[in-house]
Amino acid sequence: MSLHSGLTEEQNASIEEQRLQTQKTRRVSVEALEEVLFDPLPVLDHGFIRVVDYMGDDSAIVQAARVSYGRGTKHVSNDRGLISYLMRHRHTSPFEMCEIKLHVKLPIFVARQWIRHRTANVNEYSARYSVLSDDFYIPADDQLAAQADTNRQGRGAQLDGAEREIIAKAMRENGERAYAVYRSMLGEEKSQKPGLAREIARAVLPLNIYTEWYWKTDLHNLFQFIALRADPHAQYEIRAYAEILLEVVRRWTPLAAEAFEQYRMKSAEFSKSAIDVLRRMLDGENISQEDSGMSPREWRELMSALGRE
Amino acid sequence: MSLHSGLTEEQNASIEEQRLQTQKTRRVSVEALEEVLFDPLPVLDHGFIRVVDYMGDDSAIVQAARVSYGRGTKHVSNDRGLISYLMRHRHTSPFEMCEIKLHVKLPIFVARQWIRHRTANVNEYSARYSVLSDDFYIPADDQLAAQADTNRQGRGAQLDGAEREIIAKAMRENGERAYAVYRSMLGEEKSQKPGLAREIARAVLPLNIYTEWYWKTDLHNLFQFIALRADPHAQYEIRAYAEILLEVVRRWTPLAAEAFEQYRMKSAEFSKSAIDVLRRMLDGENISQEDSGMSPREWRELMSALGRE
Amino acid sequence: MSLHSGLTEEQNASIEEQRLQTQKTRRVSVEALEEVLFDPLPVLDHGFIRVVDYMGDDSAIVQAARVSYGRGTKHVSNDRGLISYLMRHRHTSPFEMCEIKLHVKLPIFVARQWIRHRTANVNEYSARYSVLSDDFYIPADDQLAAQADTNRQGRGAQLDGAEREIIAKAMRENGERAYAVYRSMLGEEKSQKPGLAREIARAVLPLNIYTEWYWKTDLHNLFQFIALRADPHAQYEIRAYAEILLEVVRRWTPLAAEAFEQYRMKSAEFSKSAIDVLRRMLDGENISQEDSGMSPREWRELMSALGRE
Amino acid sequence: MSLHSGLTEEQNASIEEQRLQTQKTRRVSVEALEEVLFDPLPVLDHGFIRVVDYMGDDSAIVQAARVSYGRGTKHVSNDRGLISYLMRHRHTSPFEMCEIKLHVKLPIFVARQWIRHRTANVNEYSARYSVLSDDFYIPADDQLAAQADTNRQGRGAQLDGAEREIIAKAMRENGERAYAVYRSMLGEEKSQKPGLAREIARAVLPLNIYTEWYWKTDLHNLFQFIALRADPHAQYEIRAYAEILLEVVRRWTPLAAEAFEQYRMKSAEFSKSAIDVLRRMLDGENISQEDSGMSPREWRELMSALGRE
Repeated sequence: MSLHSGLTEEQNASIEEQRLQTQKTRRVSVEALEEVLFDPLPVLDHGFIRVVDYMGDDSAIVQAARVSYGRGTKHVSNDRGLISYLMRHRHTSPFEMCEIKLHVKLPIFVARQWIRHRTANVNEYSARYSVLSDDFYIPADDQLAAQADTNRQGRGAQLDGAEREIIAKAMRENGERAYAVYRSMLGEEKSQKPGLAREIARAVLPLNIYTEWYWKTDLHNLFQFIALRADPHAQYEIRAYAEILLEVVRRWTPLAAEAFEQYRMKSAEFSKSAIDVLRRMLDGENISQEDSGMSPREWRELMSALGRE
Repeated sequence: MSLHSGLTEEQNASIEEQRLQTQKTRRVSVEALEEVLFDPLPVLDHGFIRVVDYMGDDSAIVQAARVSYGRGTKHVSNDRGLISYLMRHRHTSPFEMCEIKLHVKLPIFVARQWIRHRTANVNEYSARYSVLSDDFYIPADDQLAAQADTNRQGRGAQLDGAEREIIAKAMRENGERAYAVYRSMLGEEKSQKPGLAREIARAVLPLNIYTEWYWKTDLHNLFQFIALRADPHAQYEIRAYAEILLEVVRRWTPLAAEAFEQYRMKSAEFSKSAIDVLRRMLDGENISQEDSGMSPREWRELMSALGRE
Repeated sequence: MSLHSGLTEEQNASIEEQRLQTQKTRRVSVEALEEVLFDPLPVLDHGFIRVVDYMGDDSAIVQAARVSYGRGTKHVSNDRGLISYLMRHRHTSPFEMCEIKLHVKLPIFVARQWIRHRTANVNEYSARYSVLSDDFYIPADDQLAAQADTNRQGRGAQLDGAEREIIAKAMRENGERAYAVYRSMLGEEKSQKPGLAREIARAVLPLNIYTEWYWKTDLHNLFQFIALRADPHAQYEIRAYAEILLEVVRRWTPLAAEAFEQYRMKSAEFSKSAIDVLRRMLDGENISQEDSGMSPREWRELMSALGRE
Repeated sequence: MSLHSGLTEEQNASIEEQRLQTQKTRRVSVEALEEVLFDPLPVLDHGFIRVVDYMGDDSAIVQAARVSYGRGTKHVSNDRGLISYLMRHRHTSPFEMCEIKLHVKLPIFVARQWIRHRTANVNEYSARYSVLSDDFYIPADDQLAAQADTNRQGRGAQLDGAEREIIAKAMRENGERAYAVYRSMLGEEKSQKPGLAREIARAVLPLNIYTEWYWKTDLHNLFQFIALRADPHAQYEIRAYAEILLEVVRRWTPLAAEAFEQYRMKSAEFSKSAIDVLRRMLDGENISQEDSGMSPREWRELMSALGRE
């Protein structure tokens, strides 16, 4: 582990101390995940994900599916087959038997998307109780992009260099200015005069300031999170976190991660109409959108899934 | 209904249209709640709560508790007794049989506290999809208060007049400045030059900007919300919403609201030690904190609940 | 409405009374659903589903997706397009804005599958508090089938006539005998001697005895229920309930029901490997299971989805 | 560990194997809980609870409450104070950061009460897939009690010896008879003739047959479970499980368990009226139920909480 630039010396020391402790346990343990335990995996400019605790591994999924008395695993090949079957048929409850706890540092506008995943446990750093530090998310150059033409929600082409500079500067100054207002409203700690209550003062801070939380969820819900948030339609910033989470899952439960990628992430769902079209195409029929019975948009989505654009 | 100052003419017209529609239904219906249906009940400087739909009434609680075939109600006095019993003994599931849907306008820092209540359904106005308008929450004079001395989370004494003026001005200007940055980054809609994507641009906006959402929950979870958020320890701004919600519940399910106030809002929970102390006091013993076995803090809380400070 | 054979006269009268009440409301109302409101829709030999209350309609989905001030609907064609888009892209939260409450009578072994759907509210008839009546589920002739050969979970060919008769008789007698034990343990109500507590006595009753509950959920979770439980892999008995629920949804939110059938019920999810195979087939390649890279089981599932068995 | 009488040799061997494995881990580990890990803790006549996995300890609660970078704990005395504060003020989210997974064997009528706790993960032994074994719960002598006079839900005085014998015999025979019907409907495994599908056959089995599941929940929800199910109003059979769970928690998170007993299990909630009465009593007033403004039932509950009956 190298020091994380966004952390204080004291924080890095606390992390290091946790990394050095070793316990004996009768519980199942995952070496590849232990390697990165407590380590701040960098995301965006000041963010991170730290895996702080976990419970279960691939064998726990198998054990729960079989309601067996011993460890789940018999042979890796059996386990792979069973896990793949469970994923394919959306038997989701065995995946709920694995649990993971993360410490995450993330911009507030990302936190607001993240929290929409309700089946999880959260403890957030309290800006009523403590003073926030001045870390603001400023998009990297390649993320300063224009509103997309076709997608009302997303971003399109990169802005030109001059514009990018202007915008990055504006965002930086906006953060600094707001932070100065925040600190001045809070008052000098040593001053005689009391400052404004923290719970009000923080309201002037912009949505790109970083916050932190402990977040805990089970593997099934983590997959749901990754499926939605690593998707190209998701906003880039939360996607950056989802991609790290996918790497974490690959370390933690490699068989489940493999099945997830095969049957969820890189799969496609075809509607009743799309299946009808497919059948006709396989029978040698030459079909255009007009005689497909599908809307132009759905037709485009289908052709794209089939790599026939 | 009078027009809500924060709404456009078109919005007020849409609301008026909904208020004028009348349907026939076989469902139970609550006149006192119908009176305010769709009406924006003002909260804070630009916020509101609108009851948009509801399902069930006091009789639905009774019906579910009895799993009866007809309407729940037999006699109001029986119903009151049963509902009071259910509330007292925390039989919560019958209260889950009533559902309410609200349209709420609220500052983002309030929304971030609100969303922590997970057993609810939410659809929020999307700042990826649309441009936010420039409504910012500026605390009223009596809410510009200093950090509390004793309570690390709350606010204490009101600031003096000069300071209040300075702070209100700083908050207003902070909002205006951030909003100007936001609009300029978005670019002119009619300009040739594409602006920054909305999903990034919104990150410069401060946490006191208003957002809106549809929020739906059941009566049990609404009571949980009110119990936590109308509590003196809750931040004033969310308390303002919780108090309106309590008024809504009084209209909607008056018997349940009465039981809730009697057994939850104005009740107190006494620990094992506190009960021991009480028993000794009732036996005529004269007890001080020192010989109570309780910590100074708990002793204070107990004396305060007993009105003996 | 005709009388439901499984109900007492008093129960039928209570239902009739509810059906005759009419209220005025400003809420949205769905005529096609009001028609069957309170009516016991028969399922299996003694079961039923009664829609007891509901909230929202297709327009509520649109309204929530747009966070609009008025009624959601603009034009049916727009609404259909938007609802279909939401379903296709699994934007599930707007569907959560509709809520429905049912009164269901069902065998306990079905209830045990049903309750696994956690995002719902339940109040069940209490056999601690009251005495259960002697309704037992006995499968109809065409459901007395052998254990499936290929499917470790399901049923296969119908048993022959003699066997069916033996089994139906054995199930009937088993129920009668257990019920006699139950009643005798409870004791004569008018006897001097106290009987066994109901909460223990009920433990002798078999899993095919009927119970009842009020069950309430939102439209998204109802779709999840139907997708899983109307599936051919689900046990016949719960499928019978899921099919009635699909008919209820068609009355309640016809546009959402249409999208659900198109994109969820009659859709198929193709894995990464399946899509690769499809692409090669569309390019004219002749592929067998052996060179598909898929397991025999997955290959069979794919061919079946494509109607190429 | 001694062998559990209800388990097969093979099952006991699987458990023994798990108990012998030791892993190294950087995660927090709880020695007192590791001692009983995998061990079937007996409940009722054939049931058990086995702790199969866990995550977190008292320090994890502290860590989450502080959103700290290192291990939560500073000094045990600080931790005790903080945990007690969190429990007293119902700040429940830090307790959600600890997770536990159990393997439970329990009668189906108990499972039906247990499953009502929705915030948990479950995988149950499938009687569609496998054949159930013939373990039936028969209450011990001291649990064969009459219906309570005052409590419509509970049990009262023990039945007399002759009756107890008759009832225990009737329950045993009822189980044996139903199990014989079950096996005969399933057919001989080696016979030419196919038997009835397992998913139907199991419907003849009574509610006191044992089932098994893996059940996983967080500490907050486990406390909710214990608070409701170790309560004297809960049915004896589920109480027996709740009491073992309390012992498990005492091993796992002793500080949280201590706070839970002090502020939840042995606490009492006093209504607004009850507090008014208390204040008057402490002022020396002599109050009877008649002039208390409370119902006889509530008055009785209050006097009982105060030990003044």
